[in-house]
Amino acid sequence: MKLLSFRYEGKTLFGPKVKKEEAVWNVLAIAEAVGEKDFPSTIIEGIEQGLQFVEKVRKLAEQARTLENPEQFKYDFSTIEWLSPIPRTPKNVLCVGKNYADHAAEMGGDAPPEKLMIFTKSPTSIAADEQELPVHADVTDNLDYEGELAIVISKKGSKIPKQLAYDHVFGYTIANDVTARDVQSAHKQFFLGKSLDGSCPMGPYIVTKDEMPNPHNLSIVTKVNETVRQNGNTANMIFKVDELIAEISKYVTLEAGDVILTGTPAGVGKGMNPPTFLKSGDTVKISVEGIGTLVNRFK
Amino acid sequence: MKLLSFRYEGKTLFGPKVKKEEAVWNVLAIAEAVGEKDFPSTIIEGIEQGLQFVEKVRKLAEQARTLENPEQFKYDFSTIEWLSPIPRTPKNVLCVGKNYADHAAEMGGDAPPEKLMIFTKSPTSIAADEQELPVHADVTDNLDYEGELAIVISKKGSKIPKQLAYDHVFGYTIANDVTARDVQSAHKQFFLGKSLDGSCPMGPYIVTKDEMPNPHNLSIVTKVNETVRQNGNTANMIFKVDELIAEISKYVTLEAGDVILTGTPAGVGKGMNPPTFLKSGDTVKISVEGIGTLVNRFK
Repeated sequence: MKLLSFRYEGKTLFGPKVKKEEAVWNVLAIAEAVGEKDFPSTIIEGIEQGLQFVEKVRKLAEQARTLENPEQFKYDFSTIEWLSPIPRTPKNVLCVGKNYADHAAEMGGDAPPEKLMIFTKSPTSIAADEQELPVHADVTDNLDYEGELAIVISKKGSKIPKQLAYDHVFGYTIANDVTARDVQSAHKQFFLGKSLDGSCPMGPYIVTKDEMPNPHNLSIVTKVNETVRQNGNTANMIFKVDELIAEISKYVTLEAGDVILTGTPAGVGKGMNPPTFLKSGDTVKISVEGIGTLVNRFK
Repeated sequence: MKLLSFRYEGKTLFGPKVKKEEAVWNVLAIAEAVGEKDFPSTIIEGIEQGLQFVEKVRKLAEQARTLENPEQFKYDFSTIEWLSPIPRTPKNVLCVGKNYADHAAEMGGDAPPEKLMIFTKSPTSIAADEQELPVHADVTDNLDYEGELAIVISKKGSKIPKQLAYDHVFGYTIANDVTARDVQSAHKQFFLGKSLDGSCPMGPYIVTKDEMPNPHNLSIVTKVNETVRQNGNTANMIFKVDELIAEISKYVTLEAGDVILTGTPAGVGKGMNPPTFLKSGDTVKISVEGIGTLVNRFK
C-alpha cells in the first residue's frame, strides 16, 4: 500500500493512494461513515499498530466502494495539499552518515567509518513533495542535495536484536537530506547545517513493508533539473536496514513515526569538480524504485 | 516563580512551588474550581504564552487561598512523582559543546571552537529530578556527567536578533548532559553517546526569567557523592544566552518548550587524572544558584 498525508479543507488527513488513479481515499471519513469506532485519528497512531493498521486501511478502502456515492471519499491529487507522509516526527529525523562507500570517497577520500555515524535533522526541517523550498542565501551558498531511502519505524523499541528489526519497520519513503555544506563543516557537529527549514522533504508515499520485502535492491536516481547526478542502488548500503535498527536502538529508544534516512550514494554537488551547489530555480527529483519520485523546486 | 511538572494519581500536571513550603499548587484544579476556561492544559501550551502564563499561574495560586479548603489544591512534595519540568521537548534537546574554555581545555587541549558546536539528545533521554538512572553497563563503561544551566524557550522563532533573544526565553532549569564518552568518540557525531535512556535529567524547577534577570552570574557546582567535581560560574560561558539563541535560530526554528543546554564547565570525569567515570551507586548532585539542586542516583 502507498500511504500519504495531506491537507484538505484545512484538515490534516491521511489515506492510501487509490489504485491506478491519481487520487487518495479519505479513510477517516470512510471509518466514520461505516461506524468504525477505534480507527486511529493520526497517521502515527496508525503506524504504531503496524500491519494491522495497513489491513484496516485496506478494508476501509474496499468498503468505500460498496457505499453510496463512494466518490465523495476519494480526493483527486489536484485538489489536495501534499504533506510529508510523517508530517512531524516524534524526535529529530535520524540520519546515517557515509553509508555508501562511493559517497564516503567523494567526500574526502576517507574510508567509510567502521562505526555508525548518526546525526539528526530538526523536525522543523520536514517538508512535502512538490513543496517549494528556500535556498537560504542569507546563511549558505553551499546548499546540497542527498537522495536517500528512508525507513519509517512502527513499534517502539530499545536494544532491538537484528533478527527482529523488521518487526519494527512500518515501511519506506524517499527523503532529500538537504545540507548546507559550509555550515555543516564550520560547526563540526552536523546538526545546524542539516536543520534549515525545508531541508528534509519526504514523500510522496510510504510504501508499506509488505509490498517491499527487500529494501536492498532499489535504484536511487537523483536529477538536478534534467541532469542525472546520483545513480545508485540500495544494494550498496554498508549498514543494512536491520543493522541500522539494531545498532541505533542499542543506544536510543526508537518510537512509532521515527524516520531513519539511510545515507546517500555518490554524486552530491560537493563531490563534483568543481563543486556545484543548488541555486534558485533548480528542481531536484529523487526517484527510488517501487516508491515514486520526490520533486522539489528551490527558490 | 518556580514551576514544576509532576504526576499525581496517574495524571501529568504542573504548577508553581508553594512559597516557603515543600509543596506544589495544582493550578489546573484551581483553574477548574474558579471557572477559568482558557487556561492551558499542558505546560508547553502555557510556556508558549510567556510571562502572561506566569501571571495567570500566580493569580490562580493567590485565588486558591481565598477558596474553601485551599489545602485540597496543594500537594506535598512527598506525595507527587517528579517529572522533568518539560516532560517531553518538541524536538531533540539542543546542546552546546565546549562553551567554557576550561572544559574545552580538559577535553584535549583544543582552543574552544570559534563557531558554535551544536549537537542533540533524543527526547527519550529526558528524566526527572530524583529519578534513578541506568549506568548502561551493556553499552558503555565511560558514563560521565556534565552539569549545565538549561534555557527553556517560550515563543517560536527563526532568525531571532540577539537584541530580541530574551523575548524568546521562558526561564531556566538545571540539566545533567550525561554522556557515554566511548560511544561519543567511536561514532564521531555525538548524538548516540548523548541519547541513552535517562541521560538527560532536568529539574527540579524552571525558574521563570522575571526572577532571573541575569543568567550569567550563577555558580554551578556538581558533586559526585559528596566530592565537588565541578565548581564553575555561568559568567564564564563563551557564547552567552542571547548569542546562543540568535546563532542557533539563524539555522533552526526554535519552538515553545525547546530546551538548550548551555555547556558545562571543567571538572567532568573524563578530564580527571586518571579519568573517573560513573558507577552503580554513585549520586550526582548539580546545584545552580537560584534554581536548586538536581539529584540522581545511578544504578
